[in-house]
Amino acid sequence: MTTPKIDLTNVLPFCRELLEEAGEIALSYFRRELAVDNKLEEGRFDPVTRADREVEAFLRKALHKHFPDCAVIGEEGGVTPGTSELSWVIDPIDGTKAFISGLPTWGMLLGLKQGRQLLAGMMYQPFTGEYFVGSTAGAFLHHGEQRRVLQTRQGTSLAEAILYCTHESMFDGPENLAAFRRVADRVRLQRFGGDCYAYCMLALGRIDLVVEDTLQPYDIMPLIPIIEAAGGVVTDINGGPADEGGFVVAAANAALHREVLDVIREK
Amino acid sequence: MTTPKIDLTNVLPFCRELLEEAGEIALSYFRRELAVDNKLEEGRFDPVTRADREVEAFLRKALHKHFPDCAVIGEEGGVTPGTSELSWVIDPIDGTKAFISGLPTWGMLLGLKQGRQLLAGMMYQPFTGEYFVGSTAGAFLHHGEQRRVLQTRQGTSLAEAILYCTHESMFDGPENLAAFRRVADRVRLQRFGGDCYAYCMLALGRIDLVVEDTLQPYDIMPLIPIIEAAGGVVTDINGGPADEGGFVVAAANAALHREVLDVIREK
Repeated sequence: MTTPKIDLTNVLPFCRELLEEAGEIALSYFRRELAVDNKLEEGRFDPVTRADREVEAFLRKALHKHFPDCAVIGEEGGVTPGTSELSWVIDPIDGTKAFISGLPTWGMLLGLKQGRQLLAGMMYQPFTGEYFVGSTAGAFLHHGEQRRVLQTRQGTSLAEAILYCTHESMFDGPENLAAFRRVADRVRLQRFGGDCYAYCMLALGRIDLVVEDTLQPYDIMPLIPIIEAAGGVVTDINGGPADEGGFVVAAANAALHREVLDVIREK
Repeated sequence: MTTPKIDLTNVLPFCRELLEEAGEIALSYFRRELAVDNKLEEGRFDPVTRADREVEAFLRKALHKHFPDCAVIGEEGGVTPGTSELSWVIDPIDGTKAFISGLPTWGMLLGLKQGRQLLAGMMYQPFTGEYFVGSTAGAFLHHGEQRRVLQTRQGTSLAEAILYCTHESMFDGPENLAAFRRVADRVRLQRFGGDCYAYCMLALGRIDLVVEDTLQPYDIMPLIPIIEAAGGVVTDINGGPADEGGFVVAAANAALHREVLDVIREK
């Protein structure tokens, strides 16, 4: 691991303030009537709210101002190249379907990379006021004045595990869906829903597994440092890095992660 | 409708205080390690936490003290008969699977009936501090110092609807599951998860439909007055009263409710 070319001691508190400010924008649209566009021309329903666009525009502008040499990669605005190895990854509202349904299980994601090395990740839920952060300095949940160390559940086997996944419709083709269902058939409890909130509950030690597909890089990259710093393992379907998205296996511990990959590889 | 044999003007604020106090008990167990029992000998995983039992014991004791002539019906403690027509219905923690997973989409339910007439219903979510209440006095969401009138979405057709259901495994047999899927195939957006929280989002005008099966009376009765007072319709699969549970169709408006029952009756 190369030395980060940025001092996270100052950067992380700045990011938290930024997300809290952006959270006010998101909350101004939460549970209010708003125009819901359909990003895809046809097929799957993928709402993009004005909140999504405004939150990302706010974050991009602030990050560009304070870190002009960093690239910025966001769901709405695409890639703005930088002159350093550092790049910010933004998902302004992860879980837009939960957002439009009024549920609090969405979140705002912000991550920082140096090349392919993940330096830090953050999830902020402005309705509940929960801020999850992970970096080499550790993984924490801040809630109001409280700070709690995040720690995944250790020693849970597949048969004892709680598995989350946002929705089965996210699996790309029958093989990937069958792989998910093989895992789902062997756990103690399988539930749908959750989006980024489920990954944070994995870091908090409440959930043991999240298995999802067709993730975008910004859906998952900011969550990986939180889970890893809490003791969990996140990879793609082949056990490689998951920061580019696709089929992702997040597990509370390494033994459970191996069990899941073995089940996925069965035919 | 006969005149209620109880003055709700005083009773409802008392109930809110009671639920807030009981919420402290629930929160003392939320996101902490606790023994999760398996209520069923084998088969489906149905956790009952100590929180569940303690919350219900607290509510039963307080209700019995203040309303000694009322019956009390609860998930954990069964039926305590009363000498009047009035009965309290308690689900101490609706959404225990969300609770043990750390998600905030569970709630504490309390309802009041006079014979089969539903007088009032309440849902309290202590982590977010949201209190939903419905009676002939109207339907409201109290959140901190804010009070918001609950109003379901009017004029939404089935093709435009957002449909929630906790999990497909709740459907009793292939016919009921097929009926649910016929509805799910025609909506704009279908999501799983939510438990009582989804019904409250229906009352808040964010979700249009909840279709579920194998509900117990205490899972649904306290939610019906909230939804009805907000402009929604809740019935069983045949269009009859839903307060005894079973297959339940909750819809944001009467036209949408008719559309769903028609689709359910197709073969």
